[in-house]
Amino acid sequence: MLKAAVLGATGNVGQIFVQLLDGHPWFEVSVVAASERSKGRTYGEASRWRQSTPIPEAVAQMEVVDVTPNAIKDVDVVFSALPSAVAGKTEEDFALAGYVVVSNASAHRMDPDVPMLNPEINCSHVSLIEEQRRKRKWDGAIVTNPNCTTTVLTLPLKPIYDEFGIKSVIVSTMQAISGAGYPGVASLDIVDNVIPYIGGEDEKMETETQKILGSPSEPADLKVSASCNRVPTIDGHMMSVFVEMKKQAESKAVAVAMENFVGEPQKLNLPSAPEKPVVVTQEKDRPQTRLDRMEGKGMSVVVGRIRKDPVLNGIKFVALGHNTIRGAAGCGVLNAEYLKVKKFI
Amino acid sequence: MLKAAVLGATGNVGQIFVQLLDGHPWFEVSVVAASERSKGRTYGEASRWRQSTPIPEAVAQMEVVDVTPNAIKDVDVVFSALPSAVAGKTEEDFALAGYVVVSNASAHRMDPDVPMLNPEINCSHVSLIEEQRRKRKWDGAIVTNPNCTTTVLTLPLKPIYDEFGIKSVIVSTMQAISGAGYPGVASLDIVDNVIPYIGGEDEKMETETQKILGSPSEPADLKVSASCNRVPTIDGHMMSVFVEMKKQAESKAVAVAMENFVGEPQKLNLPSAPEKPVVVTQEKDRPQTRLDRMEGKGMSVVVGRIRKDPVLNGIKFVALGHNTIRGAAGCGVLNAEYLKVKKFI
Amino acid sequence: MLKAAVLGATGNVGQIFVQLLDGHPWFEVSVVAASERSKGRTYGEASRWRQSTPIPEAVAQMEVVDVTPNAIKDVDVVFSALPSAVAGKTEEDFALAGYVVVSNASAHRMDPDVPMLNPEINCSHVSLIEEQRRKRKWDGAIVTNPNCTTTVLTLPLKPIYDEFGIKSVIVSTMQAISGAGYPGVASLDIVDNVIPYIGGEDEKMETETQKILGSPSEPADLKVSASCNRVPTIDGHMMSVFVEMKKQAESKAVAVAMENFVGEPQKLNLPSAPEKPVVVTQEKDRPQTRLDRMEGKGMSVVVGRIRKDPVLNGIKFVALGHNTIRGAAGCGVLNAEYLKVKKFI
Amino acid sequence: MLKAAVLGATGNVGQIFVQLLDGHPWFEVSVVAASERSKGRTYGEASRWRQSTPIPEAVAQMEVVDVTPNAIKDVDVVFSALPSAVAGKTEEDFALAGYVVVSNASAHRMDPDVPMLNPEINCSHVSLIEEQRRKRKWDGAIVTNPNCTTTVLTLPLKPIYDEFGIKSVIVSTMQAISGAGYPGVASLDIVDNVIPYIGGEDEKMETETQKILGSPSEPADLKVSASCNRVPTIDGHMMSVFVEMKKQAESKAVAVAMENFVGEPQKLNLPSAPEKPVVVTQEKDRPQTRLDRMEGKGMSVVVGRIRKDPVLNGIKFVALGHNTIRGAAGCGVLNAEYLKVKKFI
Repeated sequence: MLKAAVLGATGNVGQIFVQLLDGHPWFEVSVVAASERSKGRTYGEASRWRQSTPIPEAVAQMEVVDVTPNAIKDVDVVFSALPSAVAGKTEEDFALAGYVVVSNASAHRMDPDVPMLNPEINCSHVSLIEEQRRKRKWDGAIVTNPNCTTTVLTLPLKPIYDEFGIKSVIVSTMQAISGAGYPGVASLDIVDNVIPYIGGEDEKMETETQKILGSPSEPADLKVSASCNRVPTIDGHMMSVFVEMKKQAESKAVAVAMENFVGEPQKLNLPSAPEKPVVVTQEKDRPQTRLDRMEGKGMSVVVGRIRKDPVLNGIKFVALGHNTIRGAAGCGVLNAEYLKVKKFI
Repeated sequence: MLKAAVLGATGNVGQIFVQLLDGHPWFEVSVVAASERSKGRTYGEASRWRQSTPIPEAVAQMEVVDVTPNAIKDVDVVFSALPSAVAGKTEEDFALAGYVVVSNASAHRMDPDVPMLNPEINCSHVSLIEEQRRKRKWDGAIVTNPNCTTTVLTLPLKPIYDEFGIKSVIVSTMQAISGAGYPGVASLDIVDNVIPYIGGEDEKMETETQKILGSPSEPADLKVSASCNRVPTIDGHMMSVFVEMKKQAESKAVAVAMENFVGEPQKLNLPSAPEKPVVVTQEKDRPQTRLDRMEGKGMSVVVGRIRKDPVLNGIKFVALGHNTIRGAAGCGVLNAEYLKVKKFI
Repeated sequence: MLKAAVLGATGNVGQIFVQLLDGHPWFEVSVVAASERSKGRTYGEASRWRQSTPIPEAVAQMEVVDVTPNAIKDVDVVFSALPSAVAGKTEEDFALAGYVVVSNASAHRMDPDVPMLNPEINCSHVSLIEEQRRKRKWDGAIVTNPNCTTTVLTLPLKPIYDEFGIKSVIVSTMQAISGAGYPGVASLDIVDNVIPYIGGEDEKMETETQKILGSPSEPADLKVSASCNRVPTIDGHMMSVFVEMKKQAESKAVAVAMENFVGEPQKLNLPSAPEKPVVVTQEKDRPQTRLDRMEGKGMSVVVGRIRKDPVLNGIKFVALGHNTIRGAAGCGVLNAEYLKVKKFI
Repeated sequence: MLKAAVLGATGNVGQIFVQLLDGHPWFEVSVVAASERSKGRTYGEASRWRQSTPIPEAVAQMEVVDVTPNAIKDVDVVFSALPSAVAGKTEEDFALAGYVVVSNASAHRMDPDVPMLNPEINCSHVSLIEEQRRKRKWDGAIVTNPNCTTTVLTLPLKPIYDEFGIKSVIVSTMQAISGAGYPGVASLDIVDNVIPYIGGEDEKMETETQKILGSPSEPADLKVSASCNRVPTIDGHMMSVFVEMKKQAESKAVAVAMENFVGEPQKLNLPSAPEKPVVVTQEKDRPQTRLDRMEGKGMSVVVGRIRKDPVLNGIKFVALGHNTIRGAAGCGVLNAEYLKVKKFI
């Protein structure tokens, strides 16, 4: 078993990391690190565990340590669920100390020498690690997953991009409250309400999508316009997507392309890889957030209502993915699995 | 005072008609009609009033009558909140009996000789009444308001259409549960959930928008693509809107056009006309459904986040309107006010 | 494997029966029966499956049959999730045809010769089957589980009843929407709302509790006063409970009694029996509906905040149980397991 | 017009004070004070107004000042919506500086020389001001309103107490999220959830009820047991109440006593006094939180389901009141109106 540290382990995404690594065939949590406040308490006390599965007993007993390389030893991989404000510098410290950091934070995502992996799509970007090590003069590495909404969006886009080409994408999201962490969104702000604004989210979707669909050295040449909204759901980001393609295609052909899509994680049979990264539903009123977010143990994106779009002369559809699993910790774990197979861990 | 009948008075939109006409300076409810089930009971008993303002005492005492012209007399205007399935034939019966029917039902909206009025935008369409009377050989008339989402969408589109021209519109909605009437959406279907499908709604938005922005005889030459979603809010339809314009314009210019926009209802000082049909907010996270849906007593649409759209090379924004007031009964009452001033009632 | 029929299989509790029996070591669903409307369609089509786990493939393919003994053969046990209005007569028909009917319906619960089992508490009531068969002249049997709220309430009451005696109980519930079935509660009736009334529920809790805690022939001599409320949660019935005991006891002693409590299902190691029927939490703000309802796979009741009650001179606490699992289908399956071990099936 | 300062004006209850005083016939807001963070900004900027009515224009322009007597002059009455932690000392400073402080904070509620007024019930407690001034050697005064739940509970209890006597009360609440202020309850903690714990709330209900129903010098001799729960509603505290009376009474007699109940505010015709402090509904499924919380402009408590209680040999009923109006700012304003009429202001 490889030993894993989780940074920012008491927050919401940190807890999902701990949850997903419980019983994992390759990794086991051996260190939990969090901010000053939690230091010295057991993880059970400090985390105020808020998941609906029980807290893993062994981790509950661990003492929470500082978020610094000095506090850690005998660890094979570091998962970071740090808030972006601290992630930038801290993750560099860990890479400099020789650790491979698999991060959910946005701090380094758009760095040209940092792979931002949605592994079914752009595993090849791990080649950036070499450049990163050379330029930054460290033995470790930083590898990130995209923003939760980008992760969900890019999975169904990838087969379209490969088979028909994409000129542009318009997307309007309906995002769950867990996307803002804990305590995150105040209940007075979201019960019986929609907030049509999430700070920085439109821009993240627009730029990250280009990077993921591009080559390691160059973003994809497509335009993305996003409008992000918070709605009163707990988990699961739903989105309406409108796509202008280079090559015309019927809805059916698009559905087939999505259904047939697999990536490296499926071919390598990675433990967290869903059988199908994209599941296409035929029912007219699906996917639905609460009913479909756990498809593929939360690692699949469910697509429905694929139909002609009269404006972009392309297609439109709805897509749903689990924001804290596929869109955060689950994608991170899948990334680590890929890195292990490729001997980076 | 003019006397008004409300058809389908016990349903949700019917109740809003009764609520809005309570204390109205020109109209008073003198007849409430509903389906067989309610017949012979008082409106107080039959309606199971579910609004948060008290039921108007005088209406509560009225006996509910059949939805047929024979059951009604001494009435100057008929408001219809009938379900579409029965509205088609029934509204024709009333028009044939000489009544002016102001309808919220979709049955006749797209008939070429029926005005579908969002009165700040297309009051001139009342000219269709003459043609309608000639062709249908009746003395009454049917006038409708648009679908709730179309009503909200077209108000901010109108000033853009007039000043800059519109080639195409993409819109994704987040619609409240009251839009489906009562009992409507099952709670098990919407708590912690988004349903990305509302039967017929995409198509209604796409065609009704063209009719409203067009001339009485010809729909506007613009393309609309809609994707409609139900979210767990009570009242208020929020939407992300992306607009391709004929003439480029800065966000600021668009905001000014919206802010300055007034229509006939404002010029005629109609009792239900909001001071501003479109209110532009500068706050980055507004409008919000619960906080802003009652703007202008529920008759204004609130627009926010006007910004460049990189895909359509135009602008994008969010818009919010109250679906059962501006999008249904309130629009109907405003239509009736206009018809009275124009001597149709 | 024993073959099971599910009556009322397309409704919400019917679906939970199908879900819980999927992969069950002793029973497999071989017949799904539902009302006229569903007849002749496959279960997959007719059920509009609304659970967040996938529909069991084999059952999805089955044709739905009529709810009558004639439509069924080669079945070892019949699970009934019928609405009460039809359950009364129909379940009798099945018993007369020789079937053992394990029912969630309220129709026969209070019949003196019908066991209403919450199996950790009153397994001994199966002795009523003999009397039932003699009096009703049938070879089958009807065995019911209690109302969902009663099931949850009586589990923590039982150890108190046994160790300290109970004179009276006051209980106020906060019940989830799934308790009303599907479509059940209208969303307009429950979003941002509490409905302090559930038809017949107060009375069910008051009388069923006495029957369950009593002997087969005589209800327990304790008074119960209930006030039942519907709140906007999906699954899980929470309740505030105030208990007057015959013998005074400290909160701690009550907690210990609850923690140590096991019943026949635990001793017999029945497949659906939770390790602990009652789990006592020490955290001051637990149980919480969303976080704790799946304790023991939804079969445990979680109790918290056990403390002195100054009015009844006893104790008060909060209790939470999953209404469609422990409070309905799960209790039914556990009952069937007990009946099998006891050779009734 | 008398001039009013609002302390803690930017918080949720502070905003309700500003909202209720807008257009008040006797008082006008002339000073808004809040914590360091807001100082020097206009109220419009600092408050991030979150009410569904527009921010009063004149107040929006005011500069927010420090919460200290020195920052204030020419003020006739001080309303305090301060958090309890700072209220204790700060309110004393204002009283010492000669101001009459009408407070919603809990800090001084249980001080024996501080009137805690629910003015329909215990106006006579203002006599404590004299003692307070003598003992504390100040010219100002501190007058509080009770906790939001106590306010709602005690209104229907008062007529029972007067006519039939009360031995004990058991109450289980279902409280809205606005009761915890802003940001208050995290959305992840309350969507699809019930939290059966509110810090200190059980105790407040138990002791404050005794003080309010008692004489100025002595708490009432009755026992109260409370169990407080947070549910996902925005405004409005619902509660199940079980009452043991000294003198037996039919439900009808209790209803009549409640319906006939009026207090000093009604007799004095105070501007914020509702016509009826307690409204009894006959409909079996009312009151409901969303539909009935604004009864009497949010100043009435609505009671329903009055029926026999088999345990306490008394009656049980449900009660609903608006927690931030009747239970907080509205009660404060009504208190100030009474103090003015009695020449304390």
